[in-house]
Amino acid sequence: MSRFMARLQTAWSAHDSLVCVGLDPEPARFPALLRHRPQAIFEFNKAIIDATHDQVAAYKPQFAHYAAERAEDQLEQTIAYIRATAPQALIILDSKRGDIGSTAERYAREAFERYGADAVTVNPYLGFDSVQPFLEHSDRGVIVLCRTSNPGARDFQDLAVGARTLYQVVADKVATDWNKQGNCMLVVGATYPDELGEIRARVGDLPFLVPGVGAQGGDVAAAVTLGRTANGSGLLISSSRAVLYASQGDDFALAARQAAAELRATINQHR
Amino acid sequence: MSRFMARLQTAWSAHDSLVCVGLDPEPARFPALLRHRPQAIFEFNKAIIDATHDQVAAYKPQFAHYAAERAEDQLEQTIAYIRATAPQALIILDSKRGDIGSTAERYAREAFERYGADAVTVNPYLGFDSVQPFLEHSDRGVIVLCRTSNPGARDFQDLAVGARTLYQVVADKVATDWNKQGNCMLVVGATYPDELGEIRARVGDLPFLVPGVGAQGGDVAAAVTLGRTANGSGLLISSSRAVLYASQGDDFALAARQAAAELRATINQHR
Repeated sequence: MSRFMARLQTAWSAHDSLVCVGLDPEPARFPALLRHRPQAIFEFNKAIIDATHDQVAAYKPQFAHYAAERAEDQLEQTIAYIRATAPQALIILDSKRGDIGSTAERYAREAFERYGADAVTVNPYLGFDSVQPFLEHSDRGVIVLCRTSNPGARDFQDLAVGARTLYQVVADKVATDWNKQGNCMLVVGATYPDELGEIRARVGDLPFLVPGVGAQGGDVAAAVTLGRTANGSGLLISSSRAVLYASQGDDFALAARQAAAELRATINQHR
Repeated sequence: MSRFMARLQTAWSAHDSLVCVGLDPEPARFPALLRHRPQAIFEFNKAIIDATHDQVAAYKPQFAHYAAERAEDQLEQTIAYIRATAPQALIILDSKRGDIGSTAERYAREAFERYGADAVTVNPYLGFDSVQPFLEHSDRGVIVLCRTSNPGARDFQDLAVGARTLYQVVADKVATDWNKQGNCMLVVGATYPDELGEIRARVGDLPFLVPGVGAQGGDVAAAVTLGRTANGSGLLISSSRAVLYASQGDDFALAARQAAAELRATINQHR
């Protein structure tokens, strides 16, 4: 087992949870008292982490929410706080990087050295040399977009390439070629459960990051039933808005805990 | 003509140039005296801009080079300096963003409000809703990856989708569907000149951002001859390392000017 897979197993087993909480801070949805404080994003995340860390396997900060707010420092603080509070939790930088090899080296340095993430999401459109610099960090995870959870996923990912769809070609390429070091995962959206099951059938035990439950409407039971591996694992089921903004009042952290705990319970019921 | 196309025309005609200089700062390649100064990246860029601004149509800061160095502030300074020194130059944030609609809105805000870029590069893999928030800024350019300049471009972009390749499907989709407001461009690498000509034949006057000359080895004459529009324009030919590091000594700015001027002259000879 690769060092990354061992790390992921630890994250899953720490709290018997496949839940990933997406940290997508939207200051306009914070409680009014918090919204205008100077480190509001970090304080919001800190409250979410304090309230949820015994329910989850992973946290996934979404890069755009920090970049748009000029808050890279608060992203750094958030990651440091997760490390201190929930050392077993896997930290996924969701930045969907994709660029030519010489530039991808710099994105790998950003994700794994500057931010110290355990894993990063990447876009496959530019092909192997755009992911190779990430793959070389064999202790870190490289999570490749395969079949995403959004409506536009149909535009190109579903195109027929011979007898396969493009996303199937991507899944096969990752499973048979890019995963030599055992540190790859695939992004497969919960909003298309049939595709989830069909990709699982192609790629063995390759783990999936599954967004699209919660605000995007994906069915948790179907995602788990169709996406799990033989041992009832192999998934990180990610929810962002449905956890973070379960309440927008002063009880937001408690409401987030309840939402994360319910998601964990629903998942575990179907594993 | 869209406001973005008018902006691009101004950038082309200001110095009769189709040159785009990629601002990919690599501190290890800076002259020794500059390398360890606190704002070395900004100072390097400033020297490059001072030396080249009457030779170019555009500057293209590559995001990873700032993110890996924790230098978003120096990216902001660089863009402000271009605005002050070369107000006609188009500023392209090369960050290859691609995410679901609600997140893409935040990336659009990052590119166009935080950084104030005139245009941004985006990845098409997630489909229409991942680019729509950018397209809605009709005065800004949305530069969609089509056929990239790297070896891995072959892995997925060249796959046969019916009678077309994937990159042709992307080109057609952008030209006929995403470009309703006249603010799209395509990224087409100079390293594959035949593909450049073939894409030009499909998409009319849609402008191209053409990386891959210089360090990546693309042929400038072929790129211009095959990629230009009927009026001898339609291209931003981008060079980064071959300009920035033409010399790594204290004469780096002068050497960069010479490299940019030579590129401009070679391009204009073949328009």
